[in-house]
Amino acid sequence: MDKIEPKTLKGFRDFLPEEQIARQKMIEIIRKTYENFGFVPLETPALEYSEILLGKGAGETEKLIYRFKDKGGRDISLRYDLTVPLARVMAQYKEIKKPFKRYQISPVWRAENPQKGRYREFYQCDADIVGVNSMLADAEIISLIYETLNNLDIKKFLIRINNRKIISSFLKSLGLNEKENTLTLRVIDKLEKIGEEEVIKELLKIDLDQEKAKKILSFMKTEIKDLDDLKKIEDEYPKITEGVSEMRELFKAVSIFIPDKNKYQIDLSLARGFDYYTSTIFEVYLTDLKNFGSIAGGGRYDRLVGLFSQQDLPAVGFTIGLDRLFAALEESKLIKKQKSTAKILITFLEKELLNDYLKMTKDLRNEGLNVFFYFESVKLGKQLKFAAESEINYALIYGSQEKEKQEIIVRDILKNQQETIKFDELKNYFKI
Amino acid sequence: MDKIEPKTLKGFRDFLPEEQIARQKMIEIIRKTYENFGFVPLETPALEYSEILLGKGAGETEKLIYRFKDKGGRDISLRYDLTVPLARVMAQYKEIKKPFKRYQISPVWRAENPQKGRYREFYQCDADIVGVNSMLADAEIISLIYETLNNLDIKKFLIRINNRKIISSFLKSLGLNEKENTLTLRVIDKLEKIGEEEVIKELLKIDLDQEKAKKILSFMKTEIKDLDDLKKIEDEYPKITEGVSEMRELFKAVSIFIPDKNKYQIDLSLARGFDYYTSTIFEVYLTDLKNFGSIAGGGRYDRLVGLFSQQDLPAVGFTIGLDRLFAALEESKLIKKQKSTAKILITFLEKELLNDYLKMTKDLRNEGLNVFFYFESVKLGKQLKFAAESEINYALIYGSQEKEKQEIIVRDILKNQQETIKFDELKNYFKI
Repeated sequence: MDKIEPKTLKGFRDFLPEEQIARQKMIEIIRKTYENFGFVPLETPALEYSEILLGKGAGETEKLIYRFKDKGGRDISLRYDLTVPLARVMAQYKEIKKPFKRYQISPVWRAENPQKGRYREFYQCDADIVGVNSMLADAEIISLIYETLNNLDIKKFLIRINNRKIISSFLKSLGLNEKENTLTLRVIDKLEKIGEEEVIKELLKIDLDQEKAKKILSFMKTEIKDLDDLKKIEDEYPKITEGVSEMRELFKAVSIFIPDKNKYQIDLSLARGFDYYTSTIFEVYLTDLKNFGSIAGGGRYDRLVGLFSQQDLPAVGFTIGLDRLFAALEESKLIKKQKSTAKILITFLEKELLNDYLKMTKDLRNEGLNVFFYFESVKLGKQLKFAAESEINYALIYGSQEKEKQEIIVRDILKNQQETIKFDELKNYFKI
Repeated sequence: MDKIEPKTLKGFRDFLPEEQIARQKMIEIIRKTYENFGFVPLETPALEYSEILLGKGAGETEKLIYRFKDKGGRDISLRYDLTVPLARVMAQYKEIKKPFKRYQISPVWRAENPQKGRYREFYQCDADIVGVNSMLADAEIISLIYETLNNLDIKKFLIRINNRKIISSFLKSLGLNEKENTLTLRVIDKLEKIGEEEVIKELLKIDLDQEKAKKILSFMKTEIKDLDDLKKIEDEYPKITEGVSEMRELFKAVSIFIPDKNKYQIDLSLARGFDYYTSTIFEVYLTDLKNFGSIAGGGRYDRLVGLFSQQDLPAVGFTIGLDRLFAALEESKLIKKQKSTAKILITFLEKELLNDYLKMTKDLRNEGLNVFFYFESVKLGKQLKFAAESEINYALIYGSQEKEKQEIIVRDILKNQQETIKFDELKNYFKI
């Protein structure tokens, strides 16, 4: 019979245990940090009506989304982020108490061109605060990113912060209308990728003149070292006052939450891709590994819930891209890989002692120890090799001789040494 | 502008925090138990080539699977279980060391008709042992179910066990060929649902005569109290010897792992739906809630990996249906719901004290306490009501009077009482 070729789809991956154990540890640290800040878990489905996920303007999203008709003829899609489903939830369940702080750690799917660190299935770790119209929520969100990266033992990162109101008011002061404003934001977002010259070219394409294009670029590149520098550009473009004063409020709170002033800075060139941001926006970069792009980002989106509801609801949040972060940490050798969750291998030497092995296995497991019983009575060397290759720390060796003396041999696989202990001492031996 | 109606697809659900917190706790207990037995996590993608998931025979599966063409024209599907992807992985990565014990806790998707406890997206909690051709592995798998349910505090359940070889050899001894054998198994599997009369009718439809149909039914209904009863039917149908001797070996090991003999029994009427089982099969029922059907099940499938590989690999495993189990426990009032992960609410009374509140929030979080800071300085009553409704245990109250005296009021929301403590004592107050 013909065999089916075992392979995965382009852009999709299997996580073998060595990697998955490390990924799960990261997820646990992230989850714990989110809960430390009082966030609660919410889970939404992988599939939704396409209408919900595409919202009003499809654009870029539509090209990337996994969309199809189900057997009932419904137009459905796989979620491409966790923010739009959250907005849908907030409109659907009016009974949810605000302020609502939810987190969700789940895969999303996008038919992007697979490249280094980019996959078609990847995990997002979202945290959002809904129902709070205060920069204190934005500050808490930024400090949550900071603490999460701290808890993950990541030292070298920078949070770049901007405010959409500043950019938009500046563009309006140049005479740009709403549509030109949106298009310009999308071009600016590409600055790092395509460079200044290309940005100018693309700005000219949306019917801006040379002078405006240059002014825009120069504004974006203004270096802002502290809030005083903001004052200067505020004097030049008085319309940006609202955004600047939000930024000041934000920084006041952030400075209390984040002791290290080198970890965050204002960056007027930051635009963020999604159209739905209305105020604070930010992205996180690993300063040693800039080629990985941003590993986290977010912002305030006060009108997204309004797509599904008579009422806008203020909201602010962010996502950590788990896969890109994992890849970056792997490159920096910050991931500790481990092949096994078991601490002890119980070897199988003599068939007559099977009942003893099974009982020993059961007893040690009941003590809370993770135990692997080797199912076949093959050569001891093979069993010890298996323990070594699986990175199981200890092997227990027990034959009729040991049984007679009521002893057991405990072999430390890593240190390649062993000792004989009284059988009675076994349970306590592994307790620290 | 028209609003998009916020709604989920039929058969799909949102898990609001109250439910999701409880679900996550269950998943953590299950994961911990699996690791206690030395299983390691493996994660496979949600989407695969349809060819992989459908295997050779499509049949029932094809009707239920979410299948579509992606933008590159590939025929792809959402996974409908975690067993077939595991078989694909084993064929694809020859380097995986055996015995390989992996677990995976993930959603799967089936376009089933939604009904009580049945959804189109649901979580499976799988554990499988690959590469071991011994009933000891089957025994360990069965004892893992037992320990998992124990750790979930479920008292009333029964593991029903059978062996495909017993049924098949019996059917062969009646003169049934391979195809009739397969079709008969599918009919028998429906016994509980459709009753004896319907089973007879369906058996006659696959060209069995009345006498054979009755013999089959009577065989399935044979009551087996212990291994001695097996001996009796073995005398009647000597061809079933191989299956019976496997069952004996299995029970010897199971009896060491599971002290309570009332928790498992042989049931010759058990057939299991999937065609790929080759030997041991089993299902778990909650004895108080039989209408929920089986909440876990599995068996040995020694030829599934062979679909993708030149070589068969022996394998045995099971899955727990998390959603059905959750629904059953909810009905039995065994789920403890909780609305919040935060223990402490820091109230916001005076704007002048904002920096104090933020610092307090930060400090308590650093102590490992889950803290919710109320972002707006609204009336205290509103903030305390929020704490009560969110089931946050304690509220901290701190105004300029308290600041002057270096005190803080700790209000126990549940007990509706409060005490004033020295500000310095705050960090230690919540440590137990």
